[in-house]
Order: sequence, then C-alpha cells, then structure tokens
Amino acid sequence: MKAGLIYGKKDLRIESVPVPEVTKGKAKIEIAYAGICGSDLHIYHDGAMLEEEHPLSKKKPPIILGHEFSGTVVEIGKGVTNVSPGDKVTVEPFIYCGTCEYCKKGNYNFCEFFGSLGVNDDGGFAEYCVTDARYLHKLPENMSLKEGALVEPVAVAVHAVRQSGLKVGESVAIFGAGPIGLLTLLAAKATGATKTFVVDISQERLNKAKELGAGYIIHPMNEDAVQKIVSITGNGVDIAFEAAGVSETFTNAITSIKPGGTVSVIAIYESMVPFDPNILFEKEGKIFFSRGYANEYQEVIELIAHQFIDAKQIITKEINLNNLVEDGLEFLVKDKSQSKILVRPN
Amino acid sequence: MKAGLIYGKKDLRIESVPVPEVTKGKAKIEIAYAGICGSDLHIYHDGAMLEEEHPLSKKKPPIILGHEFSGTVVEIGKGVTNVSPGDKVTVEPFIYCGTCEYCKKGNYNFCEFFGSLGVNDDGGFAEYCVTDARYLHKLPENMSLKEGALVEPVAVAVHAVRQSGLKVGESVAIFGAGPIGLLTLLAAKATGATKTFVVDISQERLNKAKELGAGYIIHPMNEDAVQKIVSITGNGVDIAFEAAGVSETFTNAITSIKPGGTVSVIAIYESMVPFDPNILFEKEGKIFFSRGYANEYQEVIELIAHQFIDAKQIITKEINLNNLVEDGLEFLVKDKSQSKILVRPN
Repeated sequence: MKAGLIYGKKDLRIESVPVPEVTKGKAKIEIAYAGICGSDLHIYHDGAMLEEEHPLSKKKPPIILGHEFSGTVVEIGKGVTNVSPGDKVTVEPFIYCGTCEYCKKGNYNFCEFFGSLGVNDDGGFAEYCVTDARYLHKLPENMSLKEGALVEPVAVAVHAVRQSGLKVGESVAIFGAGPIGLLTLLAAKATGATKTFVVDISQERLNKAKELGAGYIIHPMNEDAVQKIVSITGNGVDIAFEAAGVSETFTNAITSIKPGGTVSVIAIYESMVPFDPNILFEKEGKIFFSRGYANEYQEVIELIAHQFIDAKQIITKEINLNNLVEDGLEFLVKDKSQSKILVRPN
Repeated sequence: MKAGLIYGKKDLRIESVPVPEVTKGKAKIEIAYAGICGSDLHIYHDGAMLEEEHPLSKKKPPIILGHEFSGTVVEIGKGVTNVSPGDKVTVEPFIYCGTCEYCKKGNYNFCEFFGSLGVNDDGGFAEYCVTDARYLHKLPENMSLKEGALVEPVAVAVHAVRQSGLKVGESVAIFGAGPIGLLTLLAAKATGATKTFVVDISQERLNKAKELGAGYIIHPMNEDAVQKIVSITGNGVDIAFEAAGVSETFTNAITSIKPGGTVSVIAIYESMVPFDPNILFEKEGKIFFSRGYANEYQEVIELIAHQFIDAKQIITKEINLNNLVEDGLEFLVKDKSQSKILVRPN
C-alpha cells in the first residue's frame, strides 16, 4: 500500500509498504480521510516527537504519520466484536497501557506510557491501517467520513471546554484561530457561550472565525486585545482559551479574564514564558492545562452527528496523499487562510 | 487610646489617639490580641499597600496597622443585633461594597472596592477598635481570645485548601513554612492529607513544621526537594501549596505534582517568574490562586474550637504594643525561629 512515512526533520517519503496482517483483536480499515494537525507540522518541520522505540508499540521512526483519520472496516481479527466489515469508523489514536494509576482512573491521556498512532505507531496517511479494534468508533448513518476524520481535533476542543468549567451564558476569549482555536469556538458556542472573542495575528484566520460565528474578532496589532475584551464585557471574560502557545498570548489570556475566571491552556510552548503570578492572585484566577481527551469520543461523535458542532466548516482543502508534502505540510505554513486540510489516499 | 499607626515605609508610631465614637451599626471592642502578618511586614519594611484614600472607608495613611485581632465587645450602636457587650469576638477585616457583581455572588474577597482593616481603615494594633458589627464573629465558650486572633490567617489557609480540591487520603507538599505555610499544613492534615511534605530554606521553620506534624521536612539546599517528593510518592503529590512567592518555589511546586495534580498559590510575588507551561501541559496540571477567604469565618471558628486545627501551636511570642517595632516588625525578619507574634495593647 501507499503510505507517507516520516523519517526525520523535513524528511517525509511516500512509499509502498506491505499492508500489515490482521491478528487477534485487530481490525483493518481502508482509510478515507486523514487530517493534517499542527503537531504533524511540528514533527515534519522541527523533527519533534521523533523518539526512540515506544515501549507499547515497539515501533520507532520511520512511522506512517497522521492521527486524525476515518475509514471503512474491511477485515477483523479473532475476538473483535465492536466493529464489523463495512462499518464506517473513526480512529481514536491514543496508545496507553490500560493498567497504570492514570489509566485505571480513566485518564489514559496521561498514561505513563502515553503515545499516539501517527507518532509512536503507524497512522493515517496511508491506504490502510491495521490497529487494535478498541481504538475504533463507529460513525452513525448521518455522519460522513470527512466528519469522521475531524472527531480527533474536535475531541481536543471539547475536552478543553468541558474541563474549563464553561457554563451556559458565559463569555469566552480564544487566543489563536488555528484549527484547535476554531473548534474551541464551536465547542464553546455549543456550550452556550454568549459573548465570544477570537484573537489572532492573521486576518484570514480571523475572517474564518467570524464565518464560524465569533462575536468579535481582534487583530492584536491593530487594537489592544485585552482592552477591547474588558471594555465590551465590563470586567473580562469568564474563560480564556490559550491555543497559540506564545508568551504574548499567555499574558493576554491571563489578563483578559474576570475575577474568579479561568484560563485554559491547549497549546504546547516553544519557550519559557515570563509570568506575573500576581495578576492571577489579585483576581483569584485559575489555569487549567488540557491535554488531549479521554473517554469522550462517543460523545463528540454525537455532538457532530446531531450538528451541535458543525466541524466540517473548518475544512479548507482536500489533497492527494501523493502530494502530502507540497500541498499539505509545506503549504499549510505558507497559506494562513488554510485551516484543516484533509488527505485522501488516492 | 494607644495605637500603632503606619505613616509610611519604616515609619510606625505608637501614639495616643481618640477612641472613635460608636455610631449606628457599629460596635466598639476592647482589643485583646492582634497577630503580626507577613503583609504587615511588607507594609512596614517596603511601604507596600499604602495608597490613597480608600473609596469605602474614606481613610488613608496614617492608619492603625493590624488585621488579625480579637477582643471583647464593650459598646454597641443602634441596630446592632449580632453581638452584645461582654461578647468575646474575632474580627473579619475585609472591607467590601456588598453590591458589585462579586459581592453579590458571595466572593467579596475580590470585590471591586476590596480593602482591609489595618490597611485601608484602622485595625488591631490599638487598645480599641470601632467597626461595623457585621465584621464581628462571636467566639464559642471553649475558644480563647488568643485563638480568636488566629482565625484570620487560619481562614486564609482553609480557603486555599478547600479551593485546591484536596481530598481525604491525598498527598500534599507545602513550599514555605511561614505562618500561612504552617497553617496550611494543619488545614491539610485536618482534611485528611496522609503524606505531607514541607519545604523551606530555614531549618528552624522546618523544625516547627515537624513539631506540627509534617510527614517530611526538606531543606532544598541540602537535598533536591522535587526528587525527594517524587521518590517517596512514586509520581508526585496531589496538591502543592506555594506559600513562599519566589521563582524557585513556584517551579518546584509545578514540578512536584503528579499528573492531574494541582498547584495552589497562596503567595504574592516580588517579581516575574520564568514559567515553562509545558511542564503542566504534559501532566494536565492545574494552578489555582487563592486570595483571602469569603463566608468562611464561622466554619474556621468551629474548626479551631473543636480542635480540628490547633492553630495556637504557631504562636511563638507575645509582645506589648509599646514594643511593636523592635520586638515585632523588626524582630520577625531577624529571627527565623519566630512564627506568629501576638501583640497585646498593654
């Protein structure tokens, strides 16, 4: 089969590799769509997360990249009961041990041996994927395979919004209008956030946020983001989501919340942040860090299927796996009007 | 009456001032004991918090310092029903408007016009105090006036512990063994914390923490605090309390919690902190900031009266108001074996 394998920094190769055999507890899916995520860019452009052999998968690079994908089950191994051939499915890509303290408590997103398909085992930029059937979730009739490929990033956004404690009628500011920022906007609106602010340094991304229903879009080079948020809300937002991962957005996020408010950090940072804790002490603020999701895929599927979250709005392009580098991994860092690019194997 | 008035940095004067008149809704108390707090030191040594006229009290420095105090009611004004002459009381010193969004929700600790007796209105280092009767809480029979003077700092510790979400059987690390750190230890033990670690750079303070029941005391210059905490707990503590307010303790606190753990910040910082958010992202940590308390005095009184929290253990010295500067404000920064010093007016 054709697959996009990451060998190292700036080294992704489209190659022909054998289709793995289906063994006990596993299923083979014919991949329909796989989304390109910010972390794929991070892996490709910076050589990040390409580590030694993973203790659970026993795999190390080269690995098939891609962890946001959907497809159709074509074969199942012995003992598989949750899916059958012909089922449309989405893949929950987290790898976890199931037996450590955190897994036992349901928090497999910080399993001691945490990993992910597309990083620590073969992922979705390929024609087929053979994986543990427990990672597969059936899509309902009224949900498309394109939407199926978006369940993963929507789960990241939904987890952050749930964990933030956002309540119906409250206000939110979102710093960073990449795919996760935009999906957080949709998840916050689905939760009943009334006043919504989106802040980004790309006007194209802001326009997309407006299209998706942001109440206010703010370009922080044209106007003072915190001042605007405070002037419109009176005293700041209930929840600020930090989805950009830089010093300025972190500081703006903690400054833009009202007394008693919460900052939810969904980003990974490139460097240290100079932090004034007194800003949050004064107003008794909170910071929650949100990493992935756990036990939330089924609910996210329902949120998309029942149109609480119309995730497909963030799709800006579809490309062929053959062109993953030029039209995807390289193109995304050049064209800021892009949000989610889906990759088809053929 | 005799009173200790703060005029400015390093300028506290023991003077004779008129006893204020008791008007409607107010009560006069004969002060028994007033504790010296870290923020009193901050005001005296650094000239901090000495601002212009407060919008509610209409007072500005010179002001009678001291906000942790107890006494006996000697006179009440018209309309006062919650206390009578002869009652032993403790004073809840927060000044708040009662009508802003936060007050209405019960969070008067971040009232828009927040202030405090002893900072924005006359406080407890005096023979008498006349104040709104609503600030007074009766002490039960079995509780001493000395203990009454400790309700304020115990409320700070109890609020932080409650807000941290600490659950019975969990583990805690406390960075900073000043009075608030020690009371947080007692409040955490009252909550059922099993493994408790106290970290401080003063061996005298650590000895006091051990005396108060700390499971482990750690001098971070003699051994690696985080390493020790992780090696004993296996993976870090559930809750770390940051009660020191410096960069090193902040970093140690965020590093010492387990995945899913919480850092509770009870300190004010002198300067910015270099912060690596990825440390908390990796383990989906939380930071809560805890400022004062709200609607918790009655419960704190019960915790002390019923000996859940034996707060009087932190008292290391009693002094006369005449010697507030030499034996109190100056002495406390020299002698690290001191914890809480109580001031008697005579």
